[in-house]
Amino acid sequence: MQSFEQLLEQFSRYFNIRHFPEEPATLYEPNEYFLTIGGKRIRPVLCLMGNELFEDINKDAWHVGTAIELFHNFTLIHDDIMDQAPLRRGKETVHHKYGENTAILAGDVMLVTAYEELNKIAIHFLRPILTLFNKTAKEVCEGQQMDMDFEKMETVSLDAYIRMIELKTSVALAASLQTGAILGGAGERNQHLLYDFGRKLGIAFQVQDDFLDAFGDPGKFGKQVGGDILANKKTFLLIHALETATGSLKEELNRQLANNAPDKVEKVQQIFHECKVDDWALELKNKYLDEAFRHLEDIAVLTKRKEPLEELAHFLVKRDY
Amino acid sequence: MQSFEQLLEQFSRYFNIRHFPEEPATLYEPNEYFLTIGGKRIRPVLCLMGNELFEDINKDAWHVGTAIELFHNFTLIHDDIMDQAPLRRGKETVHHKYGENTAILAGDVMLVTAYEELNKIAIHFLRPILTLFNKTAKEVCEGQQMDMDFEKMETVSLDAYIRMIELKTSVALAASLQTGAILGGAGERNQHLLYDFGRKLGIAFQVQDDFLDAFGDPGKFGKQVGGDILANKKTFLLIHALETATGSLKEELNRQLANNAPDKVEKVQQIFHECKVDDWALELKNKYLDEAFRHLEDIAVLTKRKEPLEELAHFLVKRDY
Repeated sequence: MQSFEQLLEQFSRYFNIRHFPEEPATLYEPNEYFLTIGGKRIRPVLCLMGNELFEDINKDAWHVGTAIELFHNFTLIHDDIMDQAPLRRGKETVHHKYGENTAILAGDVMLVTAYEELNKIAIHFLRPILTLFNKTAKEVCEGQQMDMDFEKMETVSLDAYIRMIELKTSVALAASLQTGAILGGAGERNQHLLYDFGRKLGIAFQVQDDFLDAFGDPGKFGKQVGGDILANKKTFLLIHALETATGSLKEELNRQLANNAPDKVEKVQQIFHECKVDDWALELKNKYLDEAFRHLEDIAVLTKRKEPLEELAHFLVKRDY
Repeated sequence: MQSFEQLLEQFSRYFNIRHFPEEPATLYEPNEYFLTIGGKRIRPVLCLMGNELFEDINKDAWHVGTAIELFHNFTLIHDDIMDQAPLRRGKETVHHKYGENTAILAGDVMLVTAYEELNKIAIHFLRPILTLFNKTAKEVCEGQQMDMDFEKMETVSLDAYIRMIELKTSVALAASLQTGAILGGAGERNQHLLYDFGRKLGIAFQVQDDFLDAFGDPGKFGKQVGGDILANKKTFLLIHALETATGSLKEELNRQLANNAPDKVEKVQQIFHECKVDDWALELKNKYLDEAFRHLEDIAVLTKRKEPLEELAHFLVKRDY
């Protein structure tokens, strides 16, 4: 059994090759550029870990991990166009550096290359892995569309937001784990428990991310604290505040949202405190984290084998008491 | 053996269903819309014909044909964004009707759905069909990138233009035929001959299309005659004219390209005549058409079985003596 860090180190070395033909360079250089600007490679390592939970790592897990990482980068290239983002990981985005048309095509060909990589695995794995991969790919597109739709909506229900987060973020983590489980020879029940572990963990992670955006330590949190507040982003916190605030508190929240006062972040943080949105968010995070761990416990393999996933989950999402 | 028209009628009926989930409607309604605005469905019918050249139609040919048609529509949705085209087949393009972001995502999910359809075929066909499909999909992206690159270049060589046309247009026709051959149980040699038939036919078709754009009968040609000339589009004709014109003819051509005089179409047509670009183009078309037919002849099946493909080729590309 290997830790996340050990597998990450191995995958990063494995993945650090040229993935595209030389010509036409105008198409493939953008792809190579984007793959070299980094990324946490969490998803392919989840595939490796899902595999090793049940069995020694199958050589096909490296192909599936590669396909998953290429797919993830395809979504980032296209999402960056949609979000008109000039930077990712501190580097220029593909559309910003090479133009939007090339970014559309570079993303397209990145997706096709993911399928090429999948086609290298043993034939008896091809059908189930493709089925899961396709289903997940569609869901990720659906999540992105919902996210864009929400931006234009006045209010979003908590249930709708959770569904969007599941589709846009969680299912890719969950499916990465499940592909590993398939390659490790897990039965259907164990596969689905591992999938649900990843799905719930993904939601807990997003709750934490939304929380840290509002209340994080500016020295530790990677992004600007209060960024979501300034952008009126419909996060777990804002959605719950809009659902629970009443009277003058509600009026003040709406006033803050309608304007961009210099003390907006501070004021909205204060409203969040008064609505106890912060306590609620921590409870919600714990709820999803607990559910995730319950799914992991239910998987029928020796407890010892689960330790790397447990550690990773604790690393990604801190439990707050 | 069935004719193109008979198979087209059957495929159109088969394909005329809902292909996407209901929700989120903001994502899938654009896809359904685009599939209903029509299209000639040539590629899937080529798959059926390629199959029937060797054997009765395998039920998987309907899935592969569907995947091919979905793939084709994915390329159109994204190409229309890149070309900023407001209309296709006289109807609004997806990005024009629903916005560019949704068009990017709608194309993405159309491509994934094509792979879902491919995953329905018998397992022993899955590997070879996926391999050919992926290779072709990458080539089509490469062709589109080359086409965009050429727009920004001063001059393009004939060889480079032919390669671009092969990638952007011909390989998809060729691969559609070859997938059918695979499903019909054809051997490698027959598969490749059929592929090359499609590839050469595609080039002949493009030469004819470029010719008709300059010299077609305005009453019969679907598009505006002279459209390529007005846009300075690097077609077979313009590339050859730039390569062969000398002296005052060359100067006059460059002058016409640098301006948009009211009589530009007429003047450039005249230069094409004087360079004998028209005769040359017809010879070039005949050359590719003859090569295509030679490949078809070499396929080791009864001549009778080849008749529908012969007829189709004659219908698509008229031989000029």
